[in-house]
Amino acid sequence: MTDPAAIIIGAGDATGGAIARRFAREGLTSICTRRTEEAVVPLVDDIRVSGRKAIGIGCDARDEDQMVALFDRVEQEVGPVEVMVFNIGANVRFPITETTARVYRKVWEMAAFAGFLAGREAARVMLPRGAGTIIFTGATASMRGAAGFSAFAGAKFALRALAQSLARELGPKGIHVAHAVIDGAIDTAFIRDNFPDRYALKDHDGILNPEAIADAYWMLHTQERSAWTHELDLRPWMESF
Amino acid sequence: MTDPAAIIIGAGDATGGAIARRFAREGLTSICTRRTEEAVVPLVDDIRVSGRKAIGIGCDARDEDQMVALFDRVEQEVGPVEVMVFNIGANVRFPITETTARVYRKVWEMAAFAGFLAGREAARVMLPRGAGTIIFTGATASMRGAAGFSAFAGAKFALRALAQSLARELGPKGIHVAHAVIDGAIDTAFIRDNFPDRYALKDHDGILNPEAIADAYWMLHTQERSAWTHELDLRPWMESF
Amino acid sequence: MTDPAAIIIGAGDATGGAIARRFAREGLTSICTRRTEEAVVPLVDDIRVSGRKAIGIGCDARDEDQMVALFDRVEQEVGPVEVMVFNIGANVRFPITETTARVYRKVWEMAAFAGFLAGREAARVMLPRGAGTIIFTGATASMRGAAGFSAFAGAKFALRALAQSLARELGPKGIHVAHAVIDGAIDTAFIRDNFPDRYALKDHDGILNPEAIADAYWMLHTQERSAWTHELDLRPWMESF
Amino acid sequence: MTDPAAIIIGAGDATGGAIARRFAREGLTSICTRRTEEAVVPLVDDIRVSGRKAIGIGCDARDEDQMVALFDRVEQEVGPVEVMVFNIGANVRFPITETTARVYRKVWEMAAFAGFLAGREAARVMLPRGAGTIIFTGATASMRGAAGFSAFAGAKFALRALAQSLARELGPKGIHVAHAVIDGAIDTAFIRDNFPDRYALKDHDGILNPEAIADAYWMLHTQERSAWTHELDLRPWMESF
Repeated sequence: MTDPAAIIIGAGDATGGAIARRFAREGLTSICTRRTEEAVVPLVDDIRVSGRKAIGIGCDARDEDQMVALFDRVEQEVGPVEVMVFNIGANVRFPITETTARVYRKVWEMAAFAGFLAGREAARVMLPRGAGTIIFTGATASMRGAAGFSAFAGAKFALRALAQSLARELGPKGIHVAHAVIDGAIDTAFIRDNFPDRYALKDHDGILNPEAIADAYWMLHTQERSAWTHELDLRPWMESF
Repeated sequence: MTDPAAIIIGAGDATGGAIARRFAREGLTSICTRRTEEAVVPLVDDIRVSGRKAIGIGCDARDEDQMVALFDRVEQEVGPVEVMVFNIGANVRFPITETTARVYRKVWEMAAFAGFLAGREAARVMLPRGAGTIIFTGATASMRGAAGFSAFAGAKFALRALAQSLARELGPKGIHVAHAVIDGAIDTAFIRDNFPDRYALKDHDGILNPEAIADAYWMLHTQERSAWTHELDLRPWMESF
Repeated sequence: MTDPAAIIIGAGDATGGAIARRFAREGLTSICTRRTEEAVVPLVDDIRVSGRKAIGIGCDARDEDQMVALFDRVEQEVGPVEVMVFNIGANVRFPITETTARVYRKVWEMAAFAGFLAGREAARVMLPRGAGTIIFTGATASMRGAAGFSAFAGAKFALRALAQSLARELGPKGIHVAHAVIDGAIDTAFIRDNFPDRYALKDHDGILNPEAIADAYWMLHTQERSAWTHELDLRPWMESF
Repeated sequence: MTDPAAIIIGAGDATGGAIARRFAREGLTSICTRRTEEAVVPLVDDIRVSGRKAIGIGCDARDEDQMVALFDRVEQEVGPVEVMVFNIGANVRFPITETTARVYRKVWEMAAFAGFLAGREAARVMLPRGAGTIIFTGATASMRGAAGFSAFAGAKFALRALAQSLARELGPKGIHVAHAVIDGAIDTAFIRDNFPDRYALKDHDGILNPEAIADAYWMLHTQERSAWTHELDLRPWMESF
C-alpha cells in the first residue's frame, strides 16, 4: 500500500485527537496510537465516519520493540510515514523531597525516552526518502524549571534538546523537525474537571482550542523548505507569560 | 472609508514587498511605506495591476511626526489598521573600534527606534478596537550578539525587547504581537549581488523565499486568539544553526 | 604615571560606589565618573580618607568627545585602564502609548549608547596591551521585556547584545568582557524612599547589598583566563524568578 | 561528629578532584564519591597527605538506596552536609539512528537521574537547617542540542531543569542552588589522550584548569545571600561561543 501516513504518538481526546483529525482531513492516513488499541477506537471511528482514513494501534511508546514494530508495520501495511507527531505529556508537581525516584523516572520515560524512540524510528524510515516532518509537543516547562516541576521540566527540557539535536542533524537531510511550546491550559476533560475556574475562560478563548493547535501543526508540515520553523509558542491571548 | 488596512513599514523589494502583496491578495489594502513615495511606486503599481488595493506613502520611519501622521492618514482616508508589519533592517558589520557613534546611532534609529514609533502608533489606533496584529521582523542578530555586530545586534535585541513588552501589555487587550526571527539569507538583490555563492543555494531552496515569509506572516495574522504565536524562527532547511 | 586604573562609568552612591571602593581597596586607582565632577566628590573623598586612590571626573557618558577624552586623560595622567565598569541604568515604566519618543531615546542613550561608547573606548586602549576587563551591569529587563518596559528593556537588551558582541570579538584578544544580571532591588536611597516595603526586606538580606555586587565584579576581574565567566546573575535568596 | 562536609558526587581526577581539594583546603571534610571506593583512594590520600580531611565512599549514584545511605552516613558519621556538588557527566555522540535505547537511557541515568537523587537527598538534609549549597556541573550541551547529541544534551538539559526547579523551590528556604556551564575542554587525561590538538592549547590557557573551576565553585558557596548567582558560564578566553 502507498497511502502517506501521519503517526500520532499519544492520540488522546484533545490535542492528539485534533491533530489526527486534521491530518486525516488533509488526505493522510492518521495512525492513532495510545497504550492500548481500545483507547483510540472512538477517535478512529470518528475519523472514519467523516470519510477519512485512520488506523488505531496500541503501542507502549516507552517500549523499544513496540516502537520499532509500529513504524515497520505502518511502512509495510499503510505507506510512507510522512509525519510523526509526538504528543505524550506527563505533568506532575511535587516538592522535591516528595518526588519519588519512580515518579521521576516514569515521567522521563513517558515524555522524553518515548520521544527519543519515536524520533529515532521516524528518522530511520524518513532518511532514505530525504523527506518528512517530525513535531514534538512542548510545554511551558520546556523553557523554565519552576518550583515543584523537577520531574516534568526535566523530561520536557530533555525533549526540547532532542528536538534541537534532530533538527540540526536531520534538517540538512530534508527532514523538518519542529518543537511547539504549548504555553497555557488546553481545552481538555482534565482541565474541565480539575481546574473549573481556568476552564471557564474557554468562553473567552482563554484556553487553547486543540483544533487551533492542529492548525499550527499542519502549517508546520506544509511550510516550504526555504523557510522552516523549528520552534514556535502557542498561547491564549490573555495568558500571562 | 472603511477598507481594513495593513501598514508595511519598510516595503522593500523582497520581504516587505511579498508581505504587502500577500495581505493585498487576502483583501486588505496594503499601505506600502519607504523613505520616499517614489521608492514604492513599482510595488504599488504591481499590486494594483493584479486587481488588489495598495497605497504608497513616503515616510521616514525615524521621524515621530511622520509616523503619527501616517497612522492618522490611513485611519482617516483608508480604514482601520488591522495589521502593522515593521520590516526595516540595517545590517552592518564592523570591528568595535571601527564602529562610529554615527553608525551605532543610525542603525538603532532605523531598526529599533522606528520600530518603537511604529509599534506605539499601531497600539494607539488598535487599542480602542481591542483588535489588530503587530509583527516585527527579527534576525539571527536578535538572538545572539556575534563579533562585529554590536550595532546591528544592539538594535535587533532592542526590537525583540519591544516585541516582548508589547505582547505582554497588548495581548490581554486583544492585540496580537509577534516577532519572526529570520535566520538565513533572503532572496534579495543584495544577496544576489554581494554573496553570489550564497545566492547559488537558491536553486536548492537554501535561501529564504520572501513569499514563504509572507505566508508565515499571514498565518500569524489569522491565528485564532486561543493559540497565538509570539515568536517563531524561519530558516532554510540546509542552514546550520 | 603608571598606576593601573579602573574606570567606573556611573559611580553612584550604591553599586557604582561600592565597586569603586572595592577596586581601590585592591590597589587600583578608581576613576569615578558621573555627569558632573561635583557629584562624585563625596565618594572620591571617602576613598581617599581610607588611604586608597580615586579620581573624580565629570563626564556625560552619552557624549562621544567626552568619553574619548576621559580614556585619553586616564591613560596619560593616571595609568593603563585595566578595568572598565559600565554601570548606568535608567529604569522607567510607562504604558506604550504614554512612552514618548524623548523618553525612549533618552533611556537608550544613557543605558545603551553610553555603554557602546564606554565599551569601544575601553577596547581601544586595552587592545594594544591584549589585556583588560570590561563589565556591563545588566538587570532583569536585560533578559525579558515585561509590560510597560519597552524603553528600559530595549536599552538593556541592546547593552547585553553589546556585551556578547564584545566578548566574542575581544575575548580571543585577551580582554575579558562580562555581563552581570542584577535581578532584584539594590540597597539604594531610591528603593528606600520609593519602595519602603521592599526596603524592609533588607533586614533579611532580601535586597542586594552593593558590596556583594562589588565582590562579584572583583571576582570577574581576577578569574584566570582558562575559565572566564561571560554572564552571571545576582539575586537575593528570597527573590522569585 | 560535627565536621561540616562537602559531598562531591563524581570526584574524578580532574574537576571533581580539584573541587574536593579546594573545599578540604577551606576546612570542610570532602566526601569523595565514585562508583567504587577504590577509585577515589588516590584523591583521598592526596588530600590527607596535605593535612586536610577527606573520606572516600563508593556509591553508584544511580541507585536510590545507595544515595540515601550516603547522605545518612555522612550526616551521622561526619557532620552536616554544607555543600553538595554533582559532577557526573556522560558525554557521547552518535547519529540518531545509531543511538541505542540503552545508551540514551544510561546517559540520562548517569547525568540526570543521579543528579535528581543527589539534589533530592541534599535538600532532605539541608532543609531542616535552612542552609546549604547545591552545585550542578553543566556543559555546552546544557544550553544547545547539537547534531549527534540527543542523549547527552537530553540529560544535560534535564539537569539544568532540575537546577532551576530546585533553585526556585529551595532558594527561599535558604539553600543556594547553582548551575555552572562549563563551555570548553577541561584539562583531563581524556582530552590529553583523545584530542591532542586541543590539549596543546593548555600552554595558552586554552583549556579549562580544574582548579579555576574549583575557585568558581568555592566562590558560589561563599556568596552572601543578598546576591546569589544561580547560573554562570566558565570558558577559556580563546574559546569561540
